[in-house]
Amino acid sequence: MVKKAEGSAEDRLIARYFRPLASHPGALGLADDAAILVPPPGCDVVLKADAIIGGVHFFPEDSADAVGRKALRVNLSDLAAKGAKPVGFLLSLALPDGTPDVWLASFADGLRADAQLYGCPLLGGDTDRTPGPVMVSIAAFGTVPHGSMVRRSGAKPGDTVFVSGTIGDAALGLKLRREPGFAARYRLEPHERDHLLARYLIPEPRLALSEPLRLYASAAMDVSDGLAGDLAKLCGASGGSAEIEIEKVPLSDAARRIIAVDASASELAVTGGDDYEVVCTIAAEKLDAFRAAAFASGVAVTEIGRIIAGRTAPRFLDRHGHALEFAHPSFSHF
Amino acid sequence: MVKKAEGSAEDRLIARYFRPLASHPGALGLADDAAILVPPPGCDVVLKADAIIGGVHFFPEDSADAVGRKALRVNLSDLAAKGAKPVGFLLSLALPDGTPDVWLASFADGLRADAQLYGCPLLGGDTDRTPGPVMVSIAAFGTVPHGSMVRRSGAKPGDTVFVSGTIGDAALGLKLRREPGFAARYRLEPHERDHLLARYLIPEPRLALSEPLRLYASAAMDVSDGLAGDLAKLCGASGGSAEIEIEKVPLSDAARRIIAVDASASELAVTGGDDYEVVCTIAAEKLDAFRAAAFASGVAVTEIGRIIAGRTAPRFLDRHGHALEFAHPSFSHF
Repeated sequence: MVKKAEGSAEDRLIARYFRPLASHPGALGLADDAAILVPPPGCDVVLKADAIIGGVHFFPEDSADAVGRKALRVNLSDLAAKGAKPVGFLLSLALPDGTPDVWLASFADGLRADAQLYGCPLLGGDTDRTPGPVMVSIAAFGTVPHGSMVRRSGAKPGDTVFVSGTIGDAALGLKLRREPGFAARYRLEPHERDHLLARYLIPEPRLALSEPLRLYASAAMDVSDGLAGDLAKLCGASGGSAEIEIEKVPLSDAARRIIAVDASASELAVTGGDDYEVVCTIAAEKLDAFRAAAFASGVAVTEIGRIIAGRTAPRFLDRHGHALEFAHPSFSHF
Repeated sequence: MVKKAEGSAEDRLIARYFRPLASHPGALGLADDAAILVPPPGCDVVLKADAIIGGVHFFPEDSADAVGRKALRVNLSDLAAKGAKPVGFLLSLALPDGTPDVWLASFADGLRADAQLYGCPLLGGDTDRTPGPVMVSIAAFGTVPHGSMVRRSGAKPGDTVFVSGTIGDAALGLKLRREPGFAARYRLEPHERDHLLARYLIPEPRLALSEPLRLYASAAMDVSDGLAGDLAKLCGASGGSAEIEIEKVPLSDAARRIIAVDASASELAVTGGDDYEVVCTIAAEKLDAFRAAAFASGVAVTEIGRIIAGRTAPRFLDRHGHALEFAHPSFSHF
């Protein structure tokens, strides 16, 4: 398509919907070709890119507001787990022809609200038409004091394994979206159903845990592809294994109700994706300090097991000490 | 889909095709959730994100090698125009179901070759399945000494306007791709046809000009949406206008041959997209130094006009001093 020299439709779209998000001085009002980040002296920049695609990571009928929030939050979840403080993000947005203005306005509203909430303004990016579904690709940046990014690879035998929040809600929420009879089958209360749906729709990045993790965790990562699989990655990177007591894995009331009726749902809870919680490991001498700092952060953390020596996959033990066998240990797009 | 705990298909794909590109120590071998950039002391980070989509920015039948190169180069072109030295990039790659391994291998080969050529290694990213076309979203990072990123906004009346390389080749190359009779109509030699096709397929980021621009340019940007429209943006950001002598706009032999037959093609040359050249402005007292530094860089630069006072769109003057009227001053995706 063509445009007038005084400003293309793309320029107007950016000015109208996205300039209000670009409060960072380095965004240059989105009126240049690139953004500038001046890292605080002595800090490293932590970089993360993750995209969400209509029909893959969200339902095409999801509200645009929720799509905007989810796109940013899945990236902020990683920054939190790495101990980083967000500083800004770049957005590549691909829109199908005929995307209505009202969709775009709602998308930008959601993104703006979260950019403000989490102190992570828009730095720049691009918009394109696509013959495919909506795709929101975000690269998010945070800072940490030099050398202090929390890695996957630092867990040691004897370290205690913690997770934040509750596990499995989003996977159960996705099941609710896909199976209309699901809520009735488990006699979920409306507020329980809403809880699970909300946990799938818009994750909660655990940025309040960022500093406690940076100060005290030997290893951490966000749980986005299922606790079992992500913990296996952490153990693999650290050269160890883990024993997890499945009864200690924190569950919401809604998840508990489902598992009380159908014990097999506990496998879905620990292997399903989209939790966007944090799994971390804490050495014995830092346990008290971590517990206190996590408590002060307001994000619940729960001890679920410990790191052990060995190169086997982490074992999830039932109340009798028997290791559970999972048919599908983890979620993958491939 | 599901995966084994010891590594998903996505993990294997990343290890096989993308780990070889992740030579930057901050990429952590792509084995963590985020990457680390340690900015050199006293440097700002320059950030740019741009995506390319099959059927929009490239033809689905283009070689995967060319797609990988183009995706990185369109971002490097911006870093060059901003005076930045590349340091690395994040990749979000969305692939249709059934994308063959041979496509992916070729894509990664192209990307690896250019990452090496331009000193811009892979830092991290993600891969996803999409029901839509291939989408390659790259966020590229460079550094500049603090405060020295070249902006669009610094041009002053009297500054000389330069462009790098030749203008219009890519737009004519795209026309060749779309109109089978085009080459015959203009009696293009095979090497001329190949030149135009190549200029559309894989742009040439002008990174060798990066330092001369940083040292001497009052304003600069890359020319990706057509010289006329992009110069209008630069003038708008600088609060000025420009007079360009269209006969001075540098053209390749192939473009000259087409314009000799069909004068109207010169409009396409200065308004068509995908040049990935640099337009910049140089104050009188820095002209000699810029010319010398540009010459030493090996990238041809050509004086095409000057910045003037006023807020009107830049004027392109023919040999008689008459301003040309363009039907479509610039390219836009919207």
